[in-house]
Amino acid sequence: MRNAVGREIPEEIAGRKLITYNGPFSFKPDKRQYGKPLKCVFPDEKKLLPSIRDAIKKVGLEDGMTISFHHHLRNGDAVVNLVVDEIAKMGIKDIKLAPSALFPVHEKLIEHIKNGVITSIEGSLNGPLGEYVSKHGLKEPVVLRSHGGRARAIKSGELHIDVAFLAASIADEYGNCNGMLGKSAFGAMGFAYADALFADNVVVITDNLQPYPVIPISIPQIYVDYVVQVESIGDPSGIQTGTMQITRSPARLTIAKNVVKFLAKAGILKDGFSFQAGAGGISLAVTKFLHEYMKENGIVGDFVMGGITGFVVDMLMDGTIRKILDAQSFDLKAVESIAKNAGHVEVSHIMFGDPHTCGCVVNRQNACFLGATEVDLNFNVNVNTHSDGLLLHGIGGHQDAAAGSDITMITVPLLRGRLPVIRKEVTTVSTPCQTIDVIVTDRGIAINPEREDLIEEVKGKIDIVDIGELYKKAINLVGEPKEPKLSDEIVAIVEYRDGSVLDVIRKVKE
Amino acid sequence: MRNAVGREIPEEIAGRKLITYNGPFSFKPDKRQYGKPLKCVFPDEKKLLPSIRDAIKKVGLEDGMTISFHHHLRNGDAVVNLVVDEIAKMGIKDIKLAPSALFPVHEKLIEHIKNGVITSIEGSLNGPLGEYVSKHGLKEPVVLRSHGGRARAIKSGELHIDVAFLAASIADEYGNCNGMLGKSAFGAMGFAYADALFADNVVVITDNLQPYPVIPISIPQIYVDYVVQVESIGDPSGIQTGTMQITRSPARLTIAKNVVKFLAKAGILKDGFSFQAGAGGISLAVTKFLHEYMKENGIVGDFVMGGITGFVVDMLMDGTIRKILDAQSFDLKAVESIAKNAGHVEVSHIMFGDPHTCGCVVNRQNACFLGATEVDLNFNVNVNTHSDGLLLHGIGGHQDAAAGSDITMITVPLLRGRLPVIRKEVTTVSTPCQTIDVIVTDRGIAINPEREDLIEEVKGKIDIVDIGELYKKAINLVGEPKEPKLSDEIVAIVEYRDGSVLDVIRKVKE
Repeated sequence: MRNAVGREIPEEIAGRKLITYNGPFSFKPDKRQYGKPLKCVFPDEKKLLPSIRDAIKKVGLEDGMTISFHHHLRNGDAVVNLVVDEIAKMGIKDIKLAPSALFPVHEKLIEHIKNGVITSIEGSLNGPLGEYVSKHGLKEPVVLRSHGGRARAIKSGELHIDVAFLAASIADEYGNCNGMLGKSAFGAMGFAYADALFADNVVVITDNLQPYPVIPISIPQIYVDYVVQVESIGDPSGIQTGTMQITRSPARLTIAKNVVKFLAKAGILKDGFSFQAGAGGISLAVTKFLHEYMKENGIVGDFVMGGITGFVVDMLMDGTIRKILDAQSFDLKAVESIAKNAGHVEVSHIMFGDPHTCGCVVNRQNACFLGATEVDLNFNVNVNTHSDGLLLHGIGGHQDAAAGSDITMITVPLLRGRLPVIRKEVTTVSTPCQTIDVIVTDRGIAINPEREDLIEEVKGKIDIVDIGELYKKAINLVGEPKEPKLSDEIVAIVEYRDGSVLDVIRKVKE
Repeated sequence: MRNAVGREIPEEIAGRKLITYNGPFSFKPDKRQYGKPLKCVFPDEKKLLPSIRDAIKKVGLEDGMTISFHHHLRNGDAVVNLVVDEIAKMGIKDIKLAPSALFPVHEKLIEHIKNGVITSIEGSLNGPLGEYVSKHGLKEPVVLRSHGGRARAIKSGELHIDVAFLAASIADEYGNCNGMLGKSAFGAMGFAYADALFADNVVVITDNLQPYPVIPISIPQIYVDYVVQVESIGDPSGIQTGTMQITRSPARLTIAKNVVKFLAKAGILKDGFSFQAGAGGISLAVTKFLHEYMKENGIVGDFVMGGITGFVVDMLMDGTIRKILDAQSFDLKAVESIAKNAGHVEVSHIMFGDPHTCGCVVNRQNACFLGATEVDLNFNVNVNTHSDGLLLHGIGGHQDAAAGSDITMITVPLLRGRLPVIRKEVTTVSTPCQTIDVIVTDRGIAINPEREDLIEEVKGKIDIVDIGELYKKAINLVGEPKEPKLSDEIVAIVEYRDGSVLDVIRKVKE
């Protein structure tokens, strides 16, 4: 079946029936939340166990089960490797990994894929693991979901988790925990909520056991079966990866300035403004320039949703925004802020972007500024693969923010080195054209023709070009890039946040 | 079947199959949590409705459905009457009411029982409604549950709620809300969590609509289908009922002092101490005397769980305790504190006392001090009925606190007027003997003979009497009270917190 972004989607892959994507607001669920088993812990029972191995035994982990992790420690995480190594040592095989995301620090999992410990992954892949999947595939295709889509899939039982192993930077022996305090503090713990609420078993892993009751309570004791203390859950300095630096490129700074200019001219930048900004170099610059503009013009925003950085914290501190809703803290300044500022509030990724709730936060956002590896003439966006076909990034909150925000702006340079970013067709559709409004490049701004209201609003106030013009400019400069060499084998499925399928990713021929 | 507190329990009442109570820690659940329907609210959809009637229509309330409420505004609540009046006006009949509790302010519901709007109640009954049920019964027996038991029943789907109407003293138009701020602030909103999480539909009713996003977020938007603004959700001065005054009776002050003395002599009062105190006059005095004792002796407690009063807030303020876990604020000083003190934390009644979780807070309590209408020679406790058989009170957190705490102390005068409190057999078993440890009266202290450890601990340090002695003392003074005149008809079921049945309550002959 050809779906609403023009991609041919098989009816079934590896026994999994696929739902065809029919548009961002076409699918209404008729099912129920997953009902996890009722538990019972009597007053004399203890939950603190001496080791990860004990926890694996106690929860009864077996061949073929699914385990999950959050990625709040990002490239500093130690817990995924600790747990999977232990599982491997115990001789358990055929595990489905359901992390919110994996990073280069998890490269050694490739060894556990090769030895049959891990045979399936549903989760975002950043870097080496994605590249491995692109070149080799797993027994089943990897399922890629947005942050909101993952929460939805877990809540509905589509992604059934047998055991969630949740890193916490502080916990008590009964499982109350958070990520805001302690030597390994990583801030908001938004990913962990869906796992805690709907996994059949939950193990909290901490390197900072404190007297009962630990507060603030991000994940409460009632969801936690066991607690294990380890020496280190990871290195929080790994949270701030390369993408957390503000851009120094003049071209990219121009893009950021143009975003603010566009919002101002379009009449969107006014009291009550709300937005979501990511952590890429351009997004950080947008946040900084927005801050400056709002302050200069006495505009006070209602909230910022994130992925929160120190640049957003600065806005809260001087009253340029009233509140921060934080599902994931992107730098150590944000980590510090969430622990001490009452206006900086932790929210789950269910709250952030799960489309099958009574309304998530993205629905309330005026604007979002997102990156892309490619954008095409139809305004479809790719964030997963590069033009060579390699799967190197997760979807993140991209689909969610784009679907919910009044205006979704993609901030991209026209060229990356010798590669054009605007393509005839994106290599992979990560976020559908129906939810993308404006493409801001260093060589011009294009508006999705479906947004006639927006085109009308900025007419005569700001220069707009046809996206075809941007495409031609790029091709004139660098030519069309080589088509990726792909086999027919499907190595990954790109789910839309509602569970329908946007695209598939095929194996790259070496 | 005769159950483990010696009561004859029918196998079935009105089509409801009953599970026999076999002891406080005998029943392990093998079922799953209720899976509520997945929802979907697209970005352009609004949730704020102009009236309660609109909300009732939108959620599709029909004859025979179940609606729920929390009772945080206690005798000041306006929302139950507002909603039920509207339902009656709309001609909807045969409604099951599932409030956490009803108070004298809800007496007018009797009219809606008589006219067939309400035909069934599962919830605590305080005062006139209980008396009405005692004398007349409803179509089905009322089901009485503890706070933890109610949370469990809702979570498991045993108590299925079609629509929860949740009063909030502040809310935004998307449903984020709490009870801590605003003119009608009532503090913690612990009861509302189970309803929000597991009711098929949730309507937030507020008299204080504020810009999005309202924080702190007690109930998040993702659970809230609709929001309605009304003129007043009630009068918070009704939270502080008569029982919120510290006792002035010398006999009862003696009881309170004896509780502290007992705890001290039994070696329980030491650093890390934790307790739950209720709101009765004696409990308040216990809290005050505990505070004084701990302060004098440099003892710092880990936490107090409540039902929180200003007396507990005082302990937090001067560092006598480290944290307050608050599911229900019992006076306005507690309401004020939860809104501003970081160490005063809201928790749900799932967290407080639901036995079918990974462990609730009561499991962690060193001690609790609870009242009773009657105690019997077997140490069973009645809090529901009076000796004349009238149902006048809910179970509250009594069963939960008693089951979880290391030591459960019942604080009662030997006599209430001309009525003895110690009975051969309690009129109704509300909390089972297996969870009751010490009876502290103004005429002596009795220890449950099953607690040999405790008897050993205080031997020679404190005078202990046999409970039979206390009974005889009372009977010598006032004689046996008249047996209540009861018919065979069962008007209420007393569930234990795990869902098994402790006792039934029979109709009182007029």
